[in-house]
Amino acid sequence: MSRKISVGIRLNPNVTGKTHKKISTGGKDEKFGLIYNDFINLSQKIRKMKNMKLEGLSVHIGSQITNIKPFAKVLSIINKIIKKTRINFKFIDLGGGMGISYTNYEKELNLKRYAGLVNKFIKNKNAKIIFEPGRFIVGNAAILITKIIYIKKSNNKNFIILDSAMNDLMRPALYGAQHQIIPLKKTNKLISGNIDFVGPVCESSDKFLSQKNFSKVKEGDYVALTHAGAYGMTLSSNYNTRPIIAEIMVSGSKLKVIRKRQTLKNLVNN
Amino acid sequence: MSRKISVGIRLNPNVTGKTHKKISTGGKDEKFGLIYNDFINLSQKIRKMKNMKLEGLSVHIGSQITNIKPFAKVLSIINKIIKKTRINFKFIDLGGGMGISYTNYEKELNLKRYAGLVNKFIKNKNAKIIFEPGRFIVGNAAILITKIIYIKKSNNKNFIILDSAMNDLMRPALYGAQHQIIPLKKTNKLISGNIDFVGPVCESSDKFLSQKNFSKVKEGDYVALTHAGAYGMTLSSNYNTRPIIAEIMVSGSKLKVIRKRQTLKNLVNN
Repeated sequence: MSRKISVGIRLNPNVTGKTHKKISTGGKDEKFGLIYNDFINLSQKIRKMKNMKLEGLSVHIGSQITNIKPFAKVLSIINKIIKKTRINFKFIDLGGGMGISYTNYEKELNLKRYAGLVNKFIKNKNAKIIFEPGRFIVGNAAILITKIIYIKKSNNKNFIILDSAMNDLMRPALYGAQHQIIPLKKTNKLISGNIDFVGPVCESSDKFLSQKNFSKVKEGDYVALTHAGAYGMTLSSNYNTRPIIAEIMVSGSKLKVIRKRQTLKNLVNN
Repeated sequence: MSRKISVGIRLNPNVTGKTHKKISTGGKDEKFGLIYNDFINLSQKIRKMKNMKLEGLSVHIGSQITNIKPFAKVLSIINKIIKKTRINFKFIDLGGGMGISYTNYEKELNLKRYAGLVNKFIKNKNAKIIFEPGRFIVGNAAILITKIIYIKKSNNKNFIILDSAMNDLMRPALYGAQHQIIPLKKTNKLISGNIDFVGPVCESSDKFLSQKNFSKVKEGDYVALTHAGAYGMTLSSNYNTRPIIAEIMVSGSKLKVIRKRQTLKNLVNN
């Protein structure tokens, strides 16, 4: 058809995101993208093709990155590629990975510093810069509310057993991630000592958080696991024949069920 | 109602199963069961209750245990409890945990030796012994068949990209488990060197197996992941908006779809 088609390549920059190894996607041994030499070689092949032009470059070094340095490295590698190939990319997708703060002692990525780096990077370029900041946008947009079904003391540890489990929020079991837990009703009294927040599922990884001290809650009370908006519902499963929980959208003072609770019947529908 | 109700207690024997920490459930810091002293104390309380009798003891030290020693320890602890409490348990549930062989170099639990231990244990006891050997029964009853969608070489590694992903079979991503992969059509030719079998999902933990050499397969060919019958479908999810796969029962030469493939419409039904 004598057309010239615009194409893009994902670069594997061989930069690891200094994050959990399961979500670090930019190392040279990972499956994602073309490593530097392969990228250069393919771009030279495309240059010789009359029906293709290389106009896009994308990169994504991982998820939940709170350190600015890996991003700086990526930008310098892209600059190196541009210098080497002399391609005027129309689109440069820098991916996501902007880390958020799940707990009091975790810091989120310094967006101002990242913006500063990107601003410097785009000078003298005509490229449209694309980001994929999914977690940064929705991570803190949801909480997981759950009931305390049982509290038991064992071996000097307090087990607060929640109605939610690893099948509802997989991040702690899968990535060793921590979500802050807060009581819905505040009280000044404390359960002191070692506390494990666990679910009712049949394995030891069904544990959300270990911490010292917590508000004096009792069975039947509710707690919230914060920052459940990203990799929460999407990773949930029916493990232990547990139906998927309901999702409720809150807008101002309005509530709306946006996903109905799965029924046991749903589980055997197919 | 003047009745005497039979009850059972789960013991936490403080025996770890020498298995993956996420599925080792018998350590004293785990949420499951009552530790020795608590068990004894509660059994003494129950003895004084006129409407309850303690007739059951259950224990489960974890999953996928291939070493006989933890089981031997558990039996000796139960004997210690019986000696101490002088209870004639009617039911003793020894749990599951009998490990199977997922790969050529893993050995399964020696059932004969385990049977020997249990036979010795039940002598002079009237207890009914209960086992929960789920994985041992169904683990090897299923395979996961999947298409090779792409093969790429990168950084001296061959990536064989499968249509199946971590959402279909979570064990490798969750427990670092290995499932043997076999080609459906045998050939004597080899892809030599380092091979990573990966899925198309967006994170680096979406990897099934790394090994040296594999049958010379090509895109479009099928491979099977073995031993997918336990913790396979039950842990599967819709991560990356991937519908749950179909399940086909094979009996002799008969095939029957026992779970229809989920549709995208199913995903938004609720």
